[in-house]
Amino acid sequence: MVSSVKRFLIGRPLKSTELGEQKLNKTKALAVLSSDALSSVAYGPEQILIVLITVGVAAFWYSIPIALGVLILLAALILSYRQIIYAYPHGGGAYVVSKENLGEKYGLISGGALLVDYILTVAVSVSAGTDAITSAFPALHDHNVGIAIIFVLLITTLNLRGVTEAASILAYPVYLFVLALFILICTGIYNVLTHQVPAEWHTPVGTPIAGISLFLLLKAFASGSSALTGVEAISNAIPNFKDPAPNNAAKTLAAMGGLLALLFSGIVLLAYYYGITPNDKVTVVSQIAEQTFGRNFMYFFIQGTTALILILAANTGYTAFPLLAVNLANDKFIPRMFKIRGDRLGYSNGIITLGLASILLIIFFKGKTEHLIPLYAVGVFIPFTLSQTGMMLKWLREQPKGWRKKLFINTLGSVICFVVTIMFFLTKFAQVWPVLLFLPAIVFVFTTIKKHYTAVGEQLRIAVDKPAVPIEGNVIIVPVAGITKVVENSLNYAKSLGAEQVLAVYVSFDREDEREFEEKWKKWQPNVRLVTLYSQYRSIIQPLTKFVDTAQHKAGESNYRVTVVIPQFITKKGWHNILHNQSSLLIKAYLLYKRNVIITTVPYHLKK
Amino acid sequence: MVSSVKRFLIGRPLKSTELGEQKLNKTKALAVLSSDALSSVAYGPEQILIVLITVGVAAFWYSIPIALGVLILLAALILSYRQIIYAYPHGGGAYVVSKENLGEKYGLISGGALLVDYILTVAVSVSAGTDAITSAFPALHDHNVGIAIIFVLLITTLNLRGVTEAASILAYPVYLFVLALFILICTGIYNVLTHQVPAEWHTPVGTPIAGISLFLLLKAFASGSSALTGVEAISNAIPNFKDPAPNNAAKTLAAMGGLLALLFSGIVLLAYYYGITPNDKVTVVSQIAEQTFGRNFMYFFIQGTTALILILAANTGYTAFPLLAVNLANDKFIPRMFKIRGDRLGYSNGIITLGLASILLIIFFKGKTEHLIPLYAVGVFIPFTLSQTGMMLKWLREQPKGWRKKLFINTLGSVICFVVTIMFFLTKFAQVWPVLLFLPAIVFVFTTIKKHYTAVGEQLRIAVDKPAVPIEGNVIIVPVAGITKVVENSLNYAKSLGAEQVLAVYVSFDREDEREFEEKWKKWQPNVRLVTLYSQYRSIIQPLTKFVDTAQHKAGESNYRVTVVIPQFITKKGWHNILHNQSSLLIKAYLLYKRNVIITTVPYHLKK
Repeated sequence: MVSSVKRFLIGRPLKSTELGEQKLNKTKALAVLSSDALSSVAYGPEQILIVLITVGVAAFWYSIPIALGVLILLAALILSYRQIIYAYPHGGGAYVVSKENLGEKYGLISGGALLVDYILTVAVSVSAGTDAITSAFPALHDHNVGIAIIFVLLITTLNLRGVTEAASILAYPVYLFVLALFILICTGIYNVLTHQVPAEWHTPVGTPIAGISLFLLLKAFASGSSALTGVEAISNAIPNFKDPAPNNAAKTLAAMGGLLALLFSGIVLLAYYYGITPNDKVTVVSQIAEQTFGRNFMYFFIQGTTALILILAANTGYTAFPLLAVNLANDKFIPRMFKIRGDRLGYSNGIITLGLASILLIIFFKGKTEHLIPLYAVGVFIPFTLSQTGMMLKWLREQPKGWRKKLFINTLGSVICFVVTIMFFLTKFAQVWPVLLFLPAIVFVFTTIKKHYTAVGEQLRIAVDKPAVPIEGNVIIVPVAGITKVVENSLNYAKSLGAEQVLAVYVSFDREDEREFEEKWKKWQPNVRLVTLYSQYRSIIQPLTKFVDTAQHKAGESNYRVTVVIPQFITKKGWHNILHNQSSLLIKAYLLYKRNVIITTVPYHLKK
Repeated sequence: MVSSVKRFLIGRPLKSTELGEQKLNKTKALAVLSSDALSSVAYGPEQILIVLITVGVAAFWYSIPIALGVLILLAALILSYRQIIYAYPHGGGAYVVSKENLGEKYGLISGGALLVDYILTVAVSVSAGTDAITSAFPALHDHNVGIAIIFVLLITTLNLRGVTEAASILAYPVYLFVLALFILICTGIYNVLTHQVPAEWHTPVGTPIAGISLFLLLKAFASGSSALTGVEAISNAIPNFKDPAPNNAAKTLAAMGGLLALLFSGIVLLAYYYGITPNDKVTVVSQIAEQTFGRNFMYFFIQGTTALILILAANTGYTAFPLLAVNLANDKFIPRMFKIRGDRLGYSNGIITLGLASILLIIFFKGKTEHLIPLYAVGVFIPFTLSQTGMMLKWLREQPKGWRKKLFINTLGSVICFVVTIMFFLTKFAQVWPVLLFLPAIVFVFTTIKKHYTAVGEQLRIAVDKPAVPIEGNVIIVPVAGITKVVENSLNYAKSLGAEQVLAVYVSFDREDEREFEEKWKKWQPNVRLVTLYSQYRSIIQPLTKFVDTAQHKAGESNYRVTVVIPQFITKKGWHNILHNQSSLLIKAYLLYKRNVIITTVPYHLKK
């Protein structure tokens, strides 16, 4: 039953040899890997205006130079991630780059920050998309959390089906969103050029504004830079591309950069010309769309695709998180289960972990994840800065052909990212301080896990020169609870093992019963020695453990092993289990975990 | 850690021989076993007035003859349960009496009704007591459910400590309640006799009232009879009494009957003389107390002890439920775990089940369990009727000395109980109909469980004349995941068992890896045959199961057994487990439950 539900949800299992078919072409890769970055256009420009409005509406013209700054940063990031893709064609992005050039600790900071960040991406973007939908249908507003969870489950299932299937389905809304914004921007620019937009709607560029400061401009710049989160995803996901993977990834990255620059500057420009004021109730994009088209089909088309892309931005996390987790698991910093490919050849454990963690975040913040955005942005810019700095060191060290140009690009990116990071701390400390706690915590967890794996590795390594001393013989203990077929079955098995000694052990709660049982036993199994243990506290485990300890002590002297043979009822139906005390399960677990004793389970399958 | 918390909560374990010290003397038994019945005084008289007020305040004088009717029923019940105690000195009450005299089906109806009823008792009385407390402290009102659950947990813990300890603590509030009501009644009667209560406050007895009908009077009588729930508890709990148990139980029953009659008639009389009108906000007892004392210390003393006794009424359920469960479990109608005595010699599984079930009820009904009262009352009167009828048949059949008198008492009780039951169905069908569903359901569950136990018993019975064929030999399969100490350890053990064949099995996901492993193996263990299985769907369990099936098929031909020897990591710390995939646990569970194969677990305790 369970397995057929699984089949229905995620499809038939794939053979390992079918891995090649699970790779992405450029069109699909652009759709799944850039949805996060592109969706930022829906809120990035707004963030700039929200900062500027604290000085006054007249300051809005500053959004133009600030947007220019963001575009320069975008160009630097795209160029430098392009260099990363070619330098590290096996993926891993900021984690691998920082680890190899700056050292393990910085690698772990980058990796940890990105890992948490992808969880935040999913929670934040699905919540934002759900908000956009429920504000269109107010009746659904009370069910925000439930709806967001359903979306997360849907995206998780889709990704468990495999990245290509997810990409085939998700490509449509992404391209529709790009198309919608493209039409909006063209129509808007046409209106501006044909002077349909009154000049008094906006202050001319260059108007001097009282109260503007460098700090405020940097703050606006940092806020606007939150539109660049998601740019790093492609560098993490190179293994998902069709061959030649690095080339395809670099081209996809360039296409994404171009689209992002186009949409971002278009929205900033239109917002400026239309004199849009940010507003709690209606987003900037929605205001622009209404100004341009009125409330007709195009308006709703833009609103609908925006809501969809916000939700699908989550998908970028689903592609990048499992691959980053594999890199961390390969280096033994996180549990090795993240390395296992599931039925559909995706790294299912990573996908499921991401889904569950973001559902927990959504539940914990009751679907109100907006104030996580700065935390999320700073979590992106820290690995950005580290990886750019790492690349600088790489060029300085290796000095390949044309390294000065490469160094310049990465230095530019590194400085701007560093400034953005610092601005986040200076201007939004109240929201970003948790980073200062969780980054050291996560690095501590990573190194603790690695320490454990290393210790286990040492304990398991075989000393080739001195093979283990062979076992001399066995003592077998069979706990018996009565004279039944189950006991007969286990005793027969114990006798067949050729052990030096087979002992039946009976725990009694009552002297009378003890004597009776001994008599019956003598008649039934005269050749098997029976030991009876009287338990005055009605515990079976305690006297048995004590007996096993004594036996083990004696056996140890001559390198014998002690085996406890325990019968276990296997009931025909699941609910039957509550009708049997299953003390055998308790005994097994206790002896296995608390004592170093071998446990043999002889199943007895009930037929009725 | 867990075990020291347990020690702190419920105390040190007791030896089986200390059972005698866990018996109750009459004073304590009266306190724990009559709290349910006595607490009914707090709402029983009110129920009568609530029915009469539908005709008018003038009809209140009818409460006097109705109370007389209730007293007659009480006398009949006390006398007939006294007879049951002597006839069935091992306890079991209505279940045993109905089963032995009317047949198994009626026994199960009685037993099932009482079992569910004790759960209802706990939920209803704790909710009612919590309501009484939170109406005194309105700030707590929003936390009703939480507070009620805490009370249930407290009473559960107290009962897990053992019945005598519970009794020692709970006796005080019970006797304080009796004292408080006794002072109230005496003062009230004194006021009435000294003519401090104006005659116009009540209509004289015998005033003709328009609109009164036999149906209404019977309905009022049935409602008032809800004060008699809990009367049967002593007959279920005879084994908890000090020797001579039946005598002591009979005396306690008589004392309880006397107290109940006294308090019940006192409250009815005072309510009549004071002309109390039932009211949603203030209970009848509270109104009487305020009339008598004003809002002084005595008023709050009465209110406080009433709230307490409502909560402690739950304790009667805790004493009777586990003993009834033991009786049912002895007859194999419910899981045998209910027969196990816990550390403190109480039937802990019964106590814990009762606690959990009532917490679920409280959560499900959000602490508003008032409308469960009629359901609960009818659930009591059905077994009352059945046990009285059973006793009638017993006397008719056995005709011992003085049987006519005994027959008369039980016939009277049976008829009245039957009438009360019918009245509940006629007047409160909307609330009591679930009984008609859950009684057949519970009887079905009981008989299904018995059927399973009988079937298992037959399957386990040894045929003495034809002993099982001895096992000829063993084939041992050791799944190996690499060349490590864990594998070495398991192989050494497997070799020591003197089996006909030891096979190492390696599941590979990759042809290259498979070849490499085979080469390494040949160098390391040239004498152990290695079988490699290529798994194209990356499953370990499937190819392994298939291999085991083949081996078992071959082995079966010559009465060999197949044993799978599986190493299991035992990590030093609990959290380490998530760092290891523990595929061995999955393999073990799968083979054990899905195949009839013997599983030997060789633990490997990690030291770091």
